[in-house]
Amino acid sequence: MRATVIHAPGDIRVEDVPEPEIVKPTDAIIRTVATCVCGSDLWPYRGLEPVGDPHPMGHEYVGIVEETGSEVTHIRPGQFVVGSFATSDNTCANCRKGWQSSCLNREFMSTCQADYVRIPNAHGTLVATEGDPGEEFVPSLLAVSDVMGTGWYAALAAEVKPGSTAVVVGDGAVGLCGVIAAKELGAERIIAMSRHEPRQKLALEFGATDIVTERGEDGVARVKDLTNGIGADSVLECVGTAESMRQALHSARPGGNVGFVGVPHEVAVDGQELFFSQVGLRGGPAPVRRYLPDLIDRVLSGRINPGKVFDLTLPLEKVAEGYKAMDERRAIKALLTV
Amino acid sequence: MRATVIHAPGDIRVEDVPEPEIVKPTDAIIRTVATCVCGSDLWPYRGLEPVGDPHPMGHEYVGIVEETGSEVTHIRPGQFVVGSFATSDNTCANCRKGWQSSCLNREFMSTCQADYVRIPNAHGTLVATEGDPGEEFVPSLLAVSDVMGTGWYAALAAEVKPGSTAVVVGDGAVGLCGVIAAKELGAERIIAMSRHEPRQKLALEFGATDIVTERGEDGVARVKDLTNGIGADSVLECVGTAESMRQALHSARPGGNVGFVGVPHEVAVDGQELFFSQVGLRGGPAPVRRYLPDLIDRVLSGRINPGKVFDLTLPLEKVAEGYKAMDERRAIKALLTV
Repeated sequence: MRATVIHAPGDIRVEDVPEPEIVKPTDAIIRTVATCVCGSDLWPYRGLEPVGDPHPMGHEYVGIVEETGSEVTHIRPGQFVVGSFATSDNTCANCRKGWQSSCLNREFMSTCQADYVRIPNAHGTLVATEGDPGEEFVPSLLAVSDVMGTGWYAALAAEVKPGSTAVVVGDGAVGLCGVIAAKELGAERIIAMSRHEPRQKLALEFGATDIVTERGEDGVARVKDLTNGIGADSVLECVGTAESMRQALHSARPGGNVGFVGVPHEVAVDGQELFFSQVGLRGGPAPVRRYLPDLIDRVLSGRINPGKVFDLTLPLEKVAEGYKAMDERRAIKALLTV
Repeated sequence: MRATVIHAPGDIRVEDVPEPEIVKPTDAIIRTVATCVCGSDLWPYRGLEPVGDPHPMGHEYVGIVEETGSEVTHIRPGQFVVGSFATSDNTCANCRKGWQSSCLNREFMSTCQADYVRIPNAHGTLVATEGDPGEEFVPSLLAVSDVMGTGWYAALAAEVKPGSTAVVVGDGAVGLCGVIAAKELGAERIIAMSRHEPRQKLALEFGATDIVTERGEDGVARVKDLTNGIGADSVLECVGTAESMRQALHSARPGGNVGFVGVPHEVAVDGQELFFSQVGLRGGPAPVRRYLPDLIDRVLSGRINPGKVFDLTLPLEKVAEGYKAMDERRAIKALLTV
């Protein structure tokens, strides 16, 4: 089968590799319907994270169940399933508290830009839709498996509540999904920080009420102008750099909250500064599994359409072009059809 | 009048200084009934914070209103009042959201170990009791003005809820009051980390269900043993060092919360570690004003008795002995009668 392999920064190839097989009784094999390129895939692609030996790529997926291990009884071959980039048994002490992305048996997905994928912990990870959802819903269901689930977590970690003011730092796919989440959770004012016109447009379509183009302390000053001088109730940090974290922390009011979902790269938070800010801070890999049933419902009922973040669709064969377009910011997010 | 002045590390004196006067119409002057020495007063006393020029000390107080500025109309001379170490107008945008310790007009108290004290923002800071509370309640009401309010905030910031498991890092007065708060907020299991027998005893009396004497990663391992291997729902960090913060963060489960109220000294939190821990973190100076009516009620109804943290009572004249006893850990907290 075909699979995407990274050899070095900038060197993405489609290669012929053996099809995956059931290894554990809790595994399933799915035939990929759609997968995509993640902002976090760009870290090694850009050489900002070591590549090491050549290895497969991809952690976002929707597909058709091909085969199940003996302990995977809640789904059957032929069903359309949505999962998460972090697999979970959904029964351990962390899962039971709703933190499936910290499952004690967690395995992160990493081979999804391929024809077939082995899903570990399939019994606690995959959720089947009722019947075939139809092609028009595929992009949004794919988004749910990562970026929409992550935006949702960012908004919950930032404690967005009805009537509150939310700021979204980062106009990538996760940030834009964070706008959707803030809107769904009832934020009255949603300030999207973006200087890219097509992303501003999508943010407004998703529910942003204000666009701030300034960055750093100028951006913070604009947010304060819009929030009685004290800062926002909730800030969704969807980038992961020291600069974006600083901007997020400074944009929140005392007693406000920052939810951070961009994997931090060289970020250190000063204890005394955090103390006097009185800002609450929570991050991490999103417990997507907790949200799957709800988010699938919101997609299939037409309430949300996060699939719009895919502004480039390519066949798997052209995956390298997807990385390149995202790296050059010509595309927000590239969907790969399989 | 008499006032406590620090001249250098270890050099605390009682001196004769002019009585304070009303400066702004929102000020009040109180005659101190009781004040005390705070763990944070020990930072300069120990030379861990610069002393600079000789200056007065003390930020905890209860007293009798002596005089009020023209805009202070809710209290009158002769009333017994409780306040907070952070003054607040109680009307600004932050105060209205319940974050009075980040009041836009905040002034920190710093002259309370004295016969008389000027309270800035008295109109939004002081709360009078109904009638004279009686001598037996003075220690607990004094505790409410800082350590009990701070322990309360630590428990709320750590999101202690009915049935939850809470860990308290730090067995000083604030940590011990944190045990009271966790108990009052319904924690089912309260693990106090302490290796000092008198403090262990008080923690148990205040509601701790378990004592952990180990520190660092050994202490964390013990907490995990007691919490299904995943860590506690809530951790109250009541020290402020890099070691105690690490211990607190590692003791919380994914999705759990750390409330940190020890002013951090040389603490930096690694972004990626915090990310993968999925622990929520909030600290700061406690918004004591928000809690005053409730905590005063709990004291006067006899529900809580945080005044027990004062295990040394001295006349103001002997304040230097109070600092020394706390520095040498012979006393948990020294109350000064005036």
